[in-house]
Amino acid sequence: MSQLADFSREEFEVRLANTRVRMQDAGLDALLVTDPANLHYLTGYNAWSFYMPQFLFVPADGDLLLVMRAMDAHGAHHTTWLPREQVAGYPESLVHRAEVHPMDWAATELRERGHAARRMRVGYESEAHFFSVRSFLTLQRRLPEWELVDSQELVNWVRLVKSSAEISLMRAAAAVSSNAMAVGIEALRGGRRQSDIAAEIQAAQAAGIGDAEGDYPSIVPMMLAGEGADTPHLTWSSAQIVAGEAVSLELAGAHRRYHAPLARTVSLGQPSSELQRVAATTLDGFEAALELLRPGQTPEAAVEAWDAVLAKQGLTKASRLGYSIGIGYPPDWGEHTVSIRSGEETVLAPNMTFHLIAGMWMTGFGFEVSESIRITETGVEVLTSAPRELIVKADA
Amino acid sequence: MSQLADFSREEFEVRLANTRVRMQDAGLDALLVTDPANLHYLTGYNAWSFYMPQFLFVPADGDLLLVMRAMDAHGAHHTTWLPREQVAGYPESLVHRAEVHPMDWAATELRERGHAARRMRVGYESEAHFFSVRSFLTLQRRLPEWELVDSQELVNWVRLVKSSAEISLMRAAAAVSSNAMAVGIEALRGGRRQSDIAAEIQAAQAAGIGDAEGDYPSIVPMMLAGEGADTPHLTWSSAQIVAGEAVSLELAGAHRRYHAPLARTVSLGQPSSELQRVAATTLDGFEAALELLRPGQTPEAAVEAWDAVLAKQGLTKASRLGYSIGIGYPPDWGEHTVSIRSGEETVLAPNMTFHLIAGMWMTGFGFEVSESIRITETGVEVLTSAPRELIVKADA
Repeated sequence: MSQLADFSREEFEVRLANTRVRMQDAGLDALLVTDPANLHYLTGYNAWSFYMPQFLFVPADGDLLLVMRAMDAHGAHHTTWLPREQVAGYPESLVHRAEVHPMDWAATELRERGHAARRMRVGYESEAHFFSVRSFLTLQRRLPEWELVDSQELVNWVRLVKSSAEISLMRAAAAVSSNAMAVGIEALRGGRRQSDIAAEIQAAQAAGIGDAEGDYPSIVPMMLAGEGADTPHLTWSSAQIVAGEAVSLELAGAHRRYHAPLARTVSLGQPSSELQRVAATTLDGFEAALELLRPGQTPEAAVEAWDAVLAKQGLTKASRLGYSIGIGYPPDWGEHTVSIRSGEETVLAPNMTFHLIAGMWMTGFGFEVSESIRITETGVEVLTSAPRELIVKADA
Repeated sequence: MSQLADFSREEFEVRLANTRVRMQDAGLDALLVTDPANLHYLTGYNAWSFYMPQFLFVPADGDLLLVMRAMDAHGAHHTTWLPREQVAGYPESLVHRAEVHPMDWAATELRERGHAARRMRVGYESEAHFFSVRSFLTLQRRLPEWELVDSQELVNWVRLVKSSAEISLMRAAAAVSSNAMAVGIEALRGGRRQSDIAAEIQAAQAAGIGDAEGDYPSIVPMMLAGEGADTPHLTWSSAQIVAGEAVSLELAGAHRRYHAPLARTVSLGQPSSELQRVAATTLDGFEAALELLRPGQTPEAAVEAWDAVLAKQGLTKASRLGYSIGIGYPPDWGEHTVSIRSGEETVLAPNMTFHLIAGMWMTGFGFEVSESIRITETGVEVLTSAPRELIVKADA
């Protein structure tokens, strides 16, 4: 379970140093890290404990402090490079109480360690899923010396360009995805229950393939079928797959918390002419975009090419064409930084990784295709591997 | 995927009425519901969209309003009883922007619908996992007419006593759990990878058993083995299960979002005398507690009996002995209301449901046993079903 072996101690030091450079640029005396992916990135910490208050305190210099529930602090010794005295566990008696909160305890701990001795500008993650409003307000009240400042996904931005060790993990994640997709496509058949397809995909995601061991993905397999074929984010049910229908699968392989999402659409029988038309246009646009993503430029050219292909067929897509990926924890595998969309100002650079996804949800049907990609020195490496066209299976 | 069929329209009306009674008691003019389990409970809404801002606005009287990302608002029509005009979707252009936020849009929408025409006391869920600090601060700034007040898990408390329709779903969830546990116990063998055991358990959780269809559980299967045998919440890896070791499994079956967690410990070969002693004491204490949970009383007597059995053997347990369960979404299947622990003042009542869990994490090994239970008119119904003792498998 320890992932410390994946990265050198130097790599963790570089990550921390990069974080501190950004902290200095933002005028922060310290940073509170609460996003589990950011915690993992900076310390190696990895456990399903994020549903309880926990954070990493990063001062501009000096020792880090990881604060979590006492029963989980023990696990931190298994998975982080932090010395024991830099992990503090709050007592069980603070869990789910109306009158007292773990952040009351944490504030005292921080004060005793000298982190409230003067006025400080402290960054926090305003959109982190597991930093609750109550945690925020409790720290604000208990540490009036702190000026709490939105860090604007500071650590997420540090994560944007991957190291070569990270790229190896992304490639392994993509191998897991590609295999899970092959298993899902094979499993899809009219008359089978969605839940049985999900069972096979999840087993493939957990088991991995060859040397690429599986891990739990941040999101369960999505299966757009039946009444939900035109709607993203509905999860599988036990309804039967209907022969003749088209089904979109969206899933990720995960490998040691790195994610490579992948989406495909399968027609169980002859696709309607409408679906064929949308699929052909979407694929043309997708490949036009893929051609134009390259280092040294923003994603603008790729998005314009995509829009132009769609416009010629009278189609449009409101949602973005992709987003940065890497480490993921439930409920989301996106990195929350760069989007592949019009107006994105980030200049692409080698070893940025994205999920490029073209999801067209029409009325009553949908078509989805995606790849996990890496920006190279000259263009794009497609990490995932599956036939890209609308997959047509003979009706069972 | 629609779960509206599980409950009558009247049941949804009763849930809303109960919520409004508590709102009146708390002096609230309106309530913002953001916990996905609470959203599901009040409206039937069910999709993996909770990683983006979304909420249900419940005024003291008048129409509800569900606000979510436009691409997900469509799914709401599939899964809720709300009429279309009570579901509002914010535009895609607001996703992951530094300068503007979906709650800016939501505030305007609420204002236009007349929900900021006067001073109002509005409850919010201070510990809900997916109500971000930025969402909170944006609403606070945009709606100065609102006094935002911590609702103290108001809807969670409404969920505490289950209806007979809910109990049926809990029984089905328990059937899924019991089967997944049997699959897990059977799969555990020295030399197999943890990830392969997880694959089999997850497949059983998804597929369900007989009429009890599976659903995705809020938490992945936990497997306390090897270096992590003494540490809760570490997730599975591809490390091999070691013959002779003891492994604790903690998992839940889910059925139409209802959860019934279950934990067991399996010794692969002759257990150490230390493990045998801890297991015997834990089981004695667990059964003593089970005997004393009954309606009309707080959990105090049960906790005292448990503590007394442990104390006789020189053992103690800092963490609570259980918690209320029902609907669950990642990352947690607890209801965040009643805990089975000393000092809990809630009087137990028929059709409350709990996960009673005795986890003893010693140094280098652990023992865990649990059941999902229902409080009956006279005592306890154990919903889950698996041999309760330390399970000893011949070494493979």
